[in-house]
Amino acid sequence: MSSRLDEFQSYRTRMNERIAEINHLGINRFFNLDTSAYKDGALSGKTKELLGLVASMVLRCNDCIDYHIVQCVQAGWSDEELLEAFNVALVVGGSIVIPHLRHAVETRDLARQK
Amino acid sequence: MSSRLDEFQSYRTRMNERIAEINHLGINRFFNLDTSAYKDGALSGKTKELLGLVASMVLRCNDCIDYHIVQCVQAGWSDEELLEAFNVALVVGGSIVIPHLRHAVETRDLARQK
Amino acid sequence: MSSRLDEFQSYRTRMNERIAEINHLGINRFFNLDTSAYKDGALSGKTKELLGLVASMVLRCNDCIDYHIVQCVQAGWSDEELLEAFNVALVVGGSIVIPHLRHAVETRDLARQK
Amino acid sequence: MSSRLDEFQSYRTRMNERIAEINHLGINRFFNLDTSAYKDGALSGKTKELLGLVASMVLRCNDCIDYHIVQCVQAGWSDEELLEAFNVALVVGGSIVIPHLRHAVETRDLARQK
Amino acid sequence: MSSRLDEFQSYRTRMNERIAEINHLGINRFFNLDTSAYKDGALSGKTKELLGLVASMVLRCNDCIDYHIVQCVQAGWSDEELLEAFNVALVVGGSIVIPHLRHAVETRDLARQK
Amino acid sequence: MSSRLDEFQSYRTRMNERIAEINHLGINRFFNLDTSAYKDGALSGKTKELLGLVASMVLRCNDCIDYHIVQCVQAGWSDEELLEAFNVALVVGGSIVIPHLRHAVETRDLARQK
Repeated sequence: MSSRLDEFQSYRTRMNERIAEINHLGINRFFNLDTSAYKDGALSGKTKELLGLVASMVLRCNDCIDYHIVQCVQAGWSDEELLEAFNVALVVGGSIVIPHLRHAVETRDLARQK
Repeated sequence: MSSRLDEFQSYRTRMNERIAEINHLGINRFFNLDTSAYKDGALSGKTKELLGLVASMVLRCNDCIDYHIVQCVQAGWSDEELLEAFNVALVVGGSIVIPHLRHAVETRDLARQK
Repeated sequence: MSSRLDEFQSYRTRMNERIAEINHLGINRFFNLDTSAYKDGALSGKTKELLGLVASMVLRCNDCIDYHIVQCVQAGWSDEELLEAFNVALVVGGSIVIPHLRHAVETRDLARQK
Repeated sequence: MSSRLDEFQSYRTRMNERIAEINHLGINRFFNLDTSAYKDGALSGKTKELLGLVASMVLRCNDCIDYHIVQCVQAGWSDEELLEAFNVALVVGGSIVIPHLRHAVETRDLARQK
Repeated sequence: MSSRLDEFQSYRTRMNERIAEINHLGINRFFNLDTSAYKDGALSGKTKELLGLVASMVLRCNDCIDYHIVQCVQAGWSDEELLEAFNVALVVGGSIVIPHLRHAVETRDLARQK
Repeated sequence: MSSRLDEFQSYRTRMNERIAEINHLGINRFFNLDTSAYKDGALSGKTKELLGLVASMVLRCNDCIDYHIVQCVQAGWSDEELLEAFNVALVVGGSIVIPHLRHAVETRDLARQK
């Protein structure tokens, strides 16, 4: 079970490499823009990862949630802080977010074990 | 033109009072839960307002954007920091967010004039 | 102010007539299918209007909310019953639904005055 | 294959217990509010489950669909009535709902076998 | 009434200039990427404008619909072709798209008068 | 791994047959309308499949993406043309579309192998 996160990351890496190999200029530039959006600036990269996480939760995308939780854990957000962000996403997005909250809590637990 | 934000806030106040008058237990409790979600906790209320703003932008709700921008300005977020949050929302949500980015930039300008 | 609902209905009628005039087979058939979906069947038309209302609220479409509230009022749903449906939509869809809840409460009040 | 629904329910139970163990006040209160929204009131709990089902279908959440179908079957909605609700969701939400209609029909069949 | 489209375009121009003045690198690059996405390439710019239109309709953004209809008319799509694209959007997105179909038909009529 | 697409198609066929067997008039008519929307008309069926693909990507439905990619490949769209459509969907829908871009690229590769 603890391999769910590993499988996601390995699939993500493999397909991102496939996309890089295809080498479409617009798509490449979008990926660069996406990476840049989370770099330190007027807001810290750490804060921006949390913004990305909440955006992913209200838009209900498990892969995006997994990606941002791993980034958030690495950036130093504590379990209590992540929970508060999960709660904002739950209140904004409603009960339709609950399956993604379950997923997010599980991912957070898995990410701590690594 | 600078009255757009005033009109929104006056409509919002009037209808929230009407909803309070109706006094439905579930709705009342939801409103309380919503208010509580942005109070200081493991994350500061200031940070949570920014999370609420980005969530509102990617979900593309102008009224919610207006509400959270006013809160964010009052909480002390600078123009540069708000822009960074707008940018995260734009990258996550795509060009469909652009009309709401225009709205958000206008609201930020209006909120600064008050 | 009480004319908001009249303006919506007159715009809706005028543009539906324009669309009928254009006479695109696929679009015509979709409109027929849409009308049929709310007719009495295994579920009553009254129940199906309430389903349409909640669907419109969680998808956050004010025009659709206005249309279904008028239909629901005509079908005989009471204020208390409509509020319960609003509450389900609010819990499922979250605080992003609140601006549409305000709109729905106002429309319900306007529809009662007619 | 008939175990898909069992796996969902066992995962749902396990993660809800994990979330309860975490014991975040806001999240706990949201879960209570969610449960309360479907209790008998001005509308019957049975009717509200059907509203929750249609909301879940147009928002395209399979886990939510599974949850509400099981509740709807227990509440006494017949196959014909559920189909009518599926149809409203399909018309409101469009062909993008079709994969979730397939899922819902399968879940309804599985829920009847239990 | 025929000024609705003019007002949108003037607001859009004014706020895009305000955003350009703010000069945020990430946002600037996103706007460039957005412009580039509709240039002639393996697909013609004309075809890509139609893709952008249908995407805007199923995502239910009136401002985006207005923008892409004007572009599509300029690119040479006929009324009959635009209607076919509207129909695809309607079938994919469902009746929740109908208010935006009304808006799109009106905008197409307005754009032809210019 | 190359069986992912086969499994989807076999599940889709099986459940569509189950739905046909249920024989609900409204649902049957919706399926017919859906099929008709992609037939040659003022726009070619080939163009309309590409519209359906982009709509599916911005609405983030993997099953719909798989269906339309197979149709697009059969209709004669080249890899380069499909990539351009993917790019429009990515720019309109933002980084939340990236997991579906990975899925789409993989499906395109699988569809070419068949």
